[in-house]
Amino acid sequence: MNPGEDEITEWFAYQSKLSAVDFPIGIGDDMAQIRIGDESILITTDMLLDGVHFDLRNATLEQAGYKAMAVSLSDCAAMATVPVAAVVSVALPKGFGEKELKQLHAGIVKAGKKYGCELVGGDITSWIDKSPFAVSVAMISRKADNEPLKRSGAEVDDYICVTGSLGGSVYGKHLEFEPRVREALKIAQMVEVHAMIDISDGLSSDLRRICRQSNVGAIINAEQIPISLHAQKEKEPLSSALNDGEDFELLFTLSQDNCSLLLNKWDESLAIAQIGTITDTQKMQMKMPDGRIIDLQSKGYDHLKN
Amino acid sequence: MNPGEDEITEWFAYQSKLSAVDFPIGIGDDMAQIRIGDESILITTDMLLDGVHFDLRNATLEQAGYKAMAVSLSDCAAMATVPVAAVVSVALPKGFGEKELKQLHAGIVKAGKKYGCELVGGDITSWIDKSPFAVSVAMISRKADNEPLKRSGAEVDDYICVTGSLGGSVYGKHLEFEPRVREALKIAQMVEVHAMIDISDGLSSDLRRICRQSNVGAIINAEQIPISLHAQKEKEPLSSALNDGEDFELLFTLSQDNCSLLLNKWDESLAIAQIGTITDTQKMQMKMPDGRIIDLQSKGYDHLKN
Repeated sequence: MNPGEDEITEWFAYQSKLSAVDFPIGIGDDMAQIRIGDESILITTDMLLDGVHFDLRNATLEQAGYKAMAVSLSDCAAMATVPVAAVVSVALPKGFGEKELKQLHAGIVKAGKKYGCELVGGDITSWIDKSPFAVSVAMISRKADNEPLKRSGAEVDDYICVTGSLGGSVYGKHLEFEPRVREALKIAQMVEVHAMIDISDGLSSDLRRICRQSNVGAIINAEQIPISLHAQKEKEPLSSALNDGEDFELLFTLSQDNCSLLLNKWDESLAIAQIGTITDTQKMQMKMPDGRIIDLQSKGYDHLKN
Repeated sequence: MNPGEDEITEWFAYQSKLSAVDFPIGIGDDMAQIRIGDESILITTDMLLDGVHFDLRNATLEQAGYKAMAVSLSDCAAMATVPVAAVVSVALPKGFGEKELKQLHAGIVKAGKKYGCELVGGDITSWIDKSPFAVSVAMISRKADNEPLKRSGAEVDDYICVTGSLGGSVYGKHLEFEPRVREALKIAQMVEVHAMIDISDGLSSDLRRICRQSNVGAIINAEQIPISLHAQKEKEPLSSALNDGEDFELLFTLSQDNCSLLLNKWDESLAIAQIGTITDTQKMQMKMPDGRIIDLQSKGYDHLKN
């Protein structure tokens, strides 16, 4: 079987041998952390492609710009860090010019302003032909009062929680979603969170990332998974909620006591659902409505396998 | 006439209204500077496209990876800052996988190691078809003892200098050039430099950027421009040295006294040539071998006009 994104990323991480002092968080999390003098910053990058992450036949360039920023903002949320600044590079199909760049810019700035992230630079390149539009964002964030939340901190018996509802993002949410920056910071301020990730490739894939990096297993309860209205209209709503990409909700683990505390005190409109428990089985499992326990496959989006 | 990259960038800069305290250097220089607590970092991004910045029919992916990093390292050099870390995002044609990613990675790491810049993260995406390969690098640097060198500091009567020799980069140098990181830091340590840029789009275009941003003019002497061996074989060697892109040499201005001091004490193998003088004319001019003074047109590469 061909290695997927995660296996390649693990290989890159293994090669990198970063100094843990200068780079407290290296390759393989939602953001890397870089120490600069007495301070530290975090950085992430995301490449979005026409025909893959959006389709310019029915999405606008403003939506593409918004989404490009929102995806990186969601990485800032996943670490519970504060967005600061972004640089954006673009590859334009021949013929794209001032008008298209200004539309894109409007979307970039719209997302940036909402979450306090400034556009500070970029690079404009053009294909020599009609090759498709691509946009890459690199975003810097800074530490809040909490330490950045990694994928690798989940502990056995932790409860597993998600924000919002899952699945069917392709019907519109994926272009205009709200990255959970504010909510992530609030959660991290209220309780000690052990591990966090944003659901970018589907719950089943992103839970697997937490499990692999924390060296634990997980069991989730099918009946507790919040299924979005769009996913509820699908043929297999549960499968859609488990495997559709681009929910950009938060997935996190914390002690059972802290989970109770959080759910009791949580007063935001965005829902938080407890969907399962971290186990010592090294397996990902799901409890079905009829009581059966089945293996949970990771069927989310993988760029090297799709 | 359609606006070029510089005009669009100026419009973006005008829109941005960045706080000068938090962002001492904003849109429009080789890197932006971001204050984080008591420290500051600099950031740049560059997108490189197959068929534009390299041609994978005769360049290797290792060369593409090296070049992608080297272009951003050259931005660090242009500001006389110290490279720290990079994130790299890629768009892969369908069918590219592990083998291709490892080749690319080899080039990225080769360039990074040479200049002390660590790969700390990235993003892998794939086209759903054979659309071409693209790679985007975002790079973080830190301040050296000197302040970062901007494009906007040139003063009337400054001498204008370049490193190395110019033109004909397309015959090979553009894939394997050495970004002038070490030399830039050494120059900035030896003398006070007023303005600096790396020559990425051709001397005539990059000198124009210094002039526009410093609100000055310039006169260069055709006979003093160091023409590369490859450019010397071209039909119009001078035009090639003036307008070919991707030299990735340093172009900088400093007082006449400091220029003498620098040239007297410079003991590196990389040559530095004094090629002209900053003027108060608002014009870019060139003195020809026969004594005539002509207007110097910016004919370097512009992604929105080519």
